[in-house]
Amino acid sequence: MSTSLASHRYGKSHIRLVKVRRDREPHGLVDLTIDVQLEGAFESIYTSGDNTSCIATDTMKNTVYALARQHDLVHVETFGERLGRHFLEQPAVSRARISAAEHRWDHASVGGRPHPHAFTQPTGERWTADVVVDRNAVEVTSGLAHLVVLKTTDSAFAGFPRDRFTTLHETDDRILATSITASGRYRPGMTDFGARARIREGLIRTFAAHESRSVQHTLYAMAEAALDTCADIDEVTLRLPNRHHLLVDLEPFGLDNPNEVYLPTEEPHGLIEATLRRS
Amino acid sequence: MSTSLASHRYGKSHIRLVKVRRDREPHGLVDLTIDVQLEGAFESIYTSGDNTSCIATDTMKNTVYALARQHDLVHVETFGERLGRHFLEQPAVSRARISAAEHRWDHASVGGRPHPHAFTQPTGERWTADVVVDRNAVEVTSGLAHLVVLKTTDSAFAGFPRDRFTTLHETDDRILATSITASGRYRPGMTDFGARARIREGLIRTFAAHESRSVQHTLYAMAEAALDTCADIDEVTLRLPNRHHLLVDLEPFGLDNPNEVYLPTEEPHGLIEATLRRS
Amino acid sequence: MSTSLASHRYGKSHIRLVKVRRDREPHGLVDLTIDVQLEGAFESIYTSGDNTSCIATDTMKNTVYALARQHDLVHVETFGERLGRHFLEQPAVSRARISAAEHRWDHASVGGRPHPHAFTQPTGERWTADVVVDRNAVEVTSGLAHLVVLKTTDSAFAGFPRDRFTTLHETDDRILATSITASGRYRPGMTDFGARARIREGLIRTFAAHESRSVQHTLYAMAEAALDTCADIDEVTLRLPNRHHLLVDLEPFGLDNPNEVYLPTEEPHGLIEATLRRS
Amino acid sequence: MSTSLASHRYGKSHIRLVKVRRDREPHGLVDLTIDVQLEGAFESIYTSGDNTSCIATDTMKNTVYALARQHDLVHVETFGERLGRHFLEQPAVSRARISAAEHRWDHASVGGRPHPHAFTQPTGERWTADVVVDRNAVEVTSGLAHLVVLKTTDSAFAGFPRDRFTTLHETDDRILATSITASGRYRPGMTDFGARARIREGLIRTFAAHESRSVQHTLYAMAEAALDTCADIDEVTLRLPNRHHLLVDLEPFGLDNPNEVYLPTEEPHGLIEATLRRS
Repeated sequence: MSTSLASHRYGKSHIRLVKVRRDREPHGLVDLTIDVQLEGAFESIYTSGDNTSCIATDTMKNTVYALARQHDLVHVETFGERLGRHFLEQPAVSRARISAAEHRWDHASVGGRPHPHAFTQPTGERWTADVVVDRNAVEVTSGLAHLVVLKTTDSAFAGFPRDRFTTLHETDDRILATSITASGRYRPGMTDFGARARIREGLIRTFAAHESRSVQHTLYAMAEAALDTCADIDEVTLRLPNRHHLLVDLEPFGLDNPNEVYLPTEEPHGLIEATLRRS
Repeated sequence: MSTSLASHRYGKSHIRLVKVRRDREPHGLVDLTIDVQLEGAFESIYTSGDNTSCIATDTMKNTVYALARQHDLVHVETFGERLGRHFLEQPAVSRARISAAEHRWDHASVGGRPHPHAFTQPTGERWTADVVVDRNAVEVTSGLAHLVVLKTTDSAFAGFPRDRFTTLHETDDRILATSITASGRYRPGMTDFGARARIREGLIRTFAAHESRSVQHTLYAMAEAALDTCADIDEVTLRLPNRHHLLVDLEPFGLDNPNEVYLPTEEPHGLIEATLRRS
Repeated sequence: MSTSLASHRYGKSHIRLVKVRRDREPHGLVDLTIDVQLEGAFESIYTSGDNTSCIATDTMKNTVYALARQHDLVHVETFGERLGRHFLEQPAVSRARISAAEHRWDHASVGGRPHPHAFTQPTGERWTADVVVDRNAVEVTSGLAHLVVLKTTDSAFAGFPRDRFTTLHETDDRILATSITASGRYRPGMTDFGARARIREGLIRTFAAHESRSVQHTLYAMAEAALDTCADIDEVTLRLPNRHHLLVDLEPFGLDNPNEVYLPTEEPHGLIEATLRRS
Repeated sequence: MSTSLASHRYGKSHIRLVKVRRDREPHGLVDLTIDVQLEGAFESIYTSGDNTSCIATDTMKNTVYALARQHDLVHVETFGERLGRHFLEQPAVSRARISAAEHRWDHASVGGRPHPHAFTQPTGERWTADVVVDRNAVEVTSGLAHLVVLKTTDSAFAGFPRDRFTTLHETDDRILATSITASGRYRPGMTDFGARARIREGLIRTFAAHESRSVQHTLYAMAEAALDTCADIDEVTLRLPNRHHLLVDLEPFGLDNPNEVYLPTEEPHGLIEATLRRS
């Protein structure tokens, strides 16, 4: 039997990238998932295991981060073209396809105005309610889930204990991002169930303004604010995954990274849960 | 060995429900996923297969739809309490838990104003770009995905052929809902990539205003509008799943359903795809 | 501006279909998701809202179920060709694409042999463990999740109460399908954690053999069997969603449906949860 | 208003871990997702931003990897207890909960026998078919998707070009894991559609046996083998994401890592696609 390569292409998919522009107010935020695909004279990689022309897909990923540091991301189309031209510099490459999905973030609305450093992501927020009825009582809980928020500054994490397994560096300025799940329990006998909107407003306002020393610290402030907004609620529960944004190390490429280019991750994540009660 | 039931509960989960309020302008839209869970004297169902006290979970589902027709859904908490009390009328039931997730819909913004019958759902919209670079040319496509829209009126489907496998009724007023995937190809040589926002606006405006005779019919109008917004785009491709909203049959319960209570479905769905080119 | 339809196609996606072959032992089971796509002379549907040639996608769905009743599904490729040729009988249709995904089911292994009516689906089963350690005690729970099983007979549901919202028919022979989540709590002080495999075997064996009068009834028998397999476990919890398989009504097409062609659904689903304790 | 912390806990979720046992034949493979949750005297973290007692969740993650290197994972319950006791060594911690999900891998069946270094994961494999019918011809393609495989040895990646953005180390022994999507096109006129099982067998056998120099290299060998199994197939297309398994750096904890403890990742991933044709 004789066979031939009729078509072939390869690349790196799902390169996640967040870039923050901090040089002006309000801060700018671009959140991308990028795929790189190359076509060209790569036959011998397949047929004989000769990697001489095989640009590592890991190198493609690094290239995306390095070029994202060096260039504006005003139009992702322009950035895509730049990336494509970069890969075409390799003689073996005949065609490069750059596909990008941009995940939308809006400046958070605080007191009717867009906050300069806090963002919300319209990504499937749901409003929840839980009603338990038995022969003696009714318990009503109202809440929300998948309220995704991020702030580009005013978040630190330092002073934590160090043991032989601790490698995390202290930081006085990091991205803080989470997907809020919140619920508030109504005092017995309530029949006006309008607390959710006020709780939501309190959560976002506090998230935006808080000088965070940890997710726990901000959770507490947010839950206090939620209780403050509504006397009919006697207990608030928050669940905050810490969606880590890792600063990309660009030093190997001779570049600095002044809190600008991040790798957003969902796995693993910190997870902070607490209930605050009116006493 | 002797064993005992330490705890048990059962119910119906993921009951999907959309209710439209048409008696005023603008229309109102509530989109819920409801779980019902009952506890009570159900031991003999488990231990001896005696179903005398076993309220069918299918009956729970029917009850949700019937009560949704009969009552307002201003606060889902109030509706949940009503449902719970209904199930407590059965002597065997000692506790009912009603959990609801409300999926948010906003009135679509058309010309800066909320449209009375068209809605968008903030559920993970993404902006896409595709750049293909080879040694001779650059091809740039910009688009969007997961732009979820719904209109409560001005959509019909009639006049289609009937064969021995056709059971669908003609309708002159149905819900039309879809998750738009759209892309526009730039004319060669373009370097200003600002078309997406204008295309998006054209798509939503046309979706809201169109007197739809089919998804195909509305797709064509939307794609034409998108091409109209931007001379730099020479080709537009749309992909529109038809997210059917089935009118729930309430007749068995002695209730009418004047285009008010719907079961939204995702599977199966119609799928309409087309490319329009400037000629 | 002048525009033209450069390409277009439409159809029905995600048509779910389960067919049982009961005329021989062991029973046969085919589980498909089918997409239908048509191309042809459909321009006027788009451009002028003329539906004269617009085969409803609902009719496509019905056609799939009717032809599945009339023909064997030994090779889904042959069935796909048959469906395609059916749609090509319409003059407007120039090309039909039928895409199918077949979801694998294996006959359940009971006592080392394939059971003739019980099936398992290799779809992401996970083994779970939960260990809670405090200064006084250790509590260990072992379990599994996403163990998907189905039986084609020996499952009934009848004798349940009927009120004004009850429409469900009684049945003495239905498909019973679920995705088992199970966990067993070890007696304090245990250090040999080998119970899971025995529990799993007990669950599957009992699911296969039980003359089910309800999911609750079978849950109880399964949990009892799990406790029986392992004296080190003092409590077993099961969570069983009822993945309803709805018998498709083929009467409108002049066809019977002797428990053969089903629509499998995941939403809504019954949900049965209970804990059995050794007393 | 006065509020109090009614309950609180925190930890790290979704810590992914693969451990290979290479000291005997056949190789052993354990694939876990672990959640750590701590309760204790952490109030001041919340109320005053005092991190003195705040074990970083990043440290929890490191601890999981270090202990996984030092201890057997025969029973994940025993490992969970060990982890829990480790965290209880901190005076602030009063309770630790370790939850684990183990993802099942089976030794791949090659020639009817379990292969010592190649594995398959029963995780939702689907069999696909695509039939295109027009007035002149029928084109039939059969395939499969989500066939997840992994090999613990006989995979290298070296000799690739290095530019200023290359940081990847060469390796002569890595884990190779992918989720196979494969399809084969039948020669026109075929009516016996039994190729899929033979193709599947050829793919797994070749994946297991191949001395891989790259995913491309192995893809080519697999596609050749698939064509070899079946003269009725004239073209085979493979799509292989490279599910990277990153060797965890345990040096900061004074531990070596002789190809034993890995972090499996899905994002980003290499993606290799090619079509081989019989010539």
